[in-house]
This record gives sequence, structure tokens and C-alpha cells, in this order.
Amino acid sequence: MLPRPEHPVIQVEYPDWTDSVVDWSRSYGSDEERMRLAIAISRANVERRTGGPFGAAIFEAPSGRVVSIGMNSVVRYQNCTLHAEMVAFMMAQRRVGSFTLNTPHLAAHELFTSCEPCAMCLGATLWSGVRRVVYGAAREDASRLKFEEGPVFPESYKYLEDRGLTIVRNVLREDARAVMDLYRVQGGKVYNG
Amino acid sequence: MLPRPEHPVIQVEYPDWTDSVVDWSRSYGSDEERMRLAIAISRANVERRTGGPFGAAIFEAPSGRVVSIGMNSVVRYQNCTLHAEMVAFMMAQRRVGSFTLNTPHLAAHELFTSCEPCAMCLGATLWSGVRRVVYGAAREDASRLKFEEGPVFPESYKYLEDRGLTIVRNVLREDARAVMDLYRVQGGKVYNG
Repeated sequence: MLPRPEHPVIQVEYPDWTDSVVDWSRSYGSDEERMRLAIAISRANVERRTGGPFGAAIFEAPSGRVVSIGMNSVVRYQNCTLHAEMVAFMMAQRRVGSFTLNTPHLAAHELFTSCEPCAMCLGATLWSGVRRVVYGAAREDASRLKFEEGPVFPESYKYLEDRGLTIVRNVLREDARAVMDLYRVQGGKVYNG
Repeated sequence: MLPRPEHPVIQVEYPDWTDSVVDWSRSYGSDEERMRLAIAISRANVERRTGGPFGAAIFEAPSGRVVSIGMNSVVRYQNCTLHAEMVAFMMAQRRVGSFTLNTPHLAAHELFTSCEPCAMCLGATLWSGVRRVVYGAAREDASRLKFEEGPVFPESYKYLEDRGLTIVRNVLREDARAVMDLYRVQGGKVYNG
């Protein structure tokens, strides 16, 4: 059958540089090590010109094993939903075969993201089943680059915390910001600007 | 090459009943006609057991042409991000080949959704480039079914309105609610419950 324009097919895969940045077999122990991976992903995404300066990774909390990663893929796939965190959620859930990472047969999962999540990603965080969110750069750092974060308020975080999620802020913030600066210097596209 | 579990592939397509509900060639004129399509999609999704009681459609505003549709596909694809609105955004952007529907070479686009968007979908609405959002059932109707909507506040809507989006509420609300009731009677899965 011929493909019909009314029936598009969405397909999302990692870019080809993934395995040069992630060690799928090792244990990432500390918060700093885990954040370093998220930032390395954001940097590779900029250097390889596969997307915006945002990277994420989902870990099994106790083992430190990487379950999935995410990199901003909005321009690569012409798809506004493919922020780094969203790619990481989709890939993790596909890998474990569950629409939530918060189920009795799975260890606790946590999201590390190089930048504070936008409104969409914060909402998805709640549905994803991760129990802890650690971010690097802050909303203001993204705004400085004219990336918008959307309707996120202090109550938004409280809403998540009331449901048992832990939020940790500004881990290796300067390193995460440095990648945003690189993106700007490189003339990268600010697609929501 | 053998597929590796570390490199999942995300693929999203419409379910097979799509063309029995949507007329891709016709013009849907009024808000009621457009909402009726979104609700018909939600109903088909429940009746064909392909997902939760939520449907959406994106229209070219002036022509009334359907650009894309969306149906809750969370359970079908084991993917927490695939709410009806998100599927509609992805499909529309894939079809027009742009990560935003708000560009000079495109007519204004609008989202019709059978239920008030959750926090994730409201954030994505901002990135999607639709200029107008029309919803049927309200947050309370979804909550009655134990579907959660996440951190959405009056300021969230104001944030969108301040950026030029128009929000229209409770169009054919009773019809949209009736599909939720059908889902409950049918014993459908409330995956965020």
C-alpha cells in the first residue's frame, strides 16, 4: 500500500553518537556522576548538531544503571514534543515495557536533566513514574538564551512533591550553562524564541 | 544488525479504525462540528479498545480541513506521553513538516480536544503553534473517573492567553462526558489512578 499523507508515521531513534557518550554497562554512582552524563549528552547534541542544548538520562536509582537517555530532538524530527526529558521517558518505558516506571516489579527510577524541565516535561514527569528529578541549569539560564519554559509555577513543584516526588536543583549548574553558551556561540536555532 | 535493548525505537501510528471516523476531505465548519469529531474519536478509541476516553483533532481554522487527529494511546504503546493531544501535535507537525504550526506559510491551526488538557498537554499546546484550543469535558469530569490532570492552574491558562492563544471551554461537554462514562462502565484502565 502506498503511504498516505493523512496517516503519518512517527519514528524516534537515538542519534548515531549515543554509544560514544553513554556507558550502558557501568554504574553511575553519585548525583554528580549522573548529572555529568546528562550534561555530556546535551554537549554531544550541540557538537554533533543533532539538536538543542538539552540532555537527560533516566537511572535505576539503587544500581546507577542507565535505563534511557534523551536529547532535544525537536528540529531533527520536526516535532515540538521531543524535548530531552520526553525522549528519555519514551525510551525508558519502551525498554521496560510499561507506561509507568513506578510499579512494584521495578526499582525506583530517577530523571537527571541538564536544565529545569518546561511545563510539558514537568507534567510528563508526573505521568512517567520517576520518583526523583535532578536538574542542572535553571529556568533563568534557558530564558537568557530565549528558550521559553512555559507555565511552571512554585505550586507546580509543590504538586509533584505532594505526590511523593523529590526535586533537586542546580547540580553542576555552571557546567550545564556552559553548553547553552556553546550553542549560542555556534548559532544554534532557538525554536521557541 | 541485531536490535539492542539499549536502543529502543519509538513508532506511533493511528489505529486501524481511523478512516471510519474521520473524513479527511470534508470541511468541518462550526466549533460544534469540529468538537463532534474529537468526541467521535474518543468514543471509537473506547469502543475499539485502543485506549482511554480522550480524542483530539487539529484543524486548519479557515478551511475546516482536518490536519491530524489524536487518540489516547498510553496503554497501546506503553508510553505515558501519548495523550490524545500529543498524538495530534506530532502527527500534524509530521504532516506539515514543521515543529510549529504557527509559521507564516501556514494558515492558523486550532486544537479541539474532548477533555481539558492535562499539564503536559497544555505545555505542549504552547510549543505546538496552535492559535486556539477548544475543549469539551472539564478537569472535574476526568477527575471523577480518577484520571489526574496534573499541575494546571488559572495562571497556566493566563500564560497561554498572554501569548495570543484563545481558550474555549465546555463545548458539547455532556457528549464528551458520556464517553468517559462508557469507558468506566466498560471497565477501562485508569492508568494514572
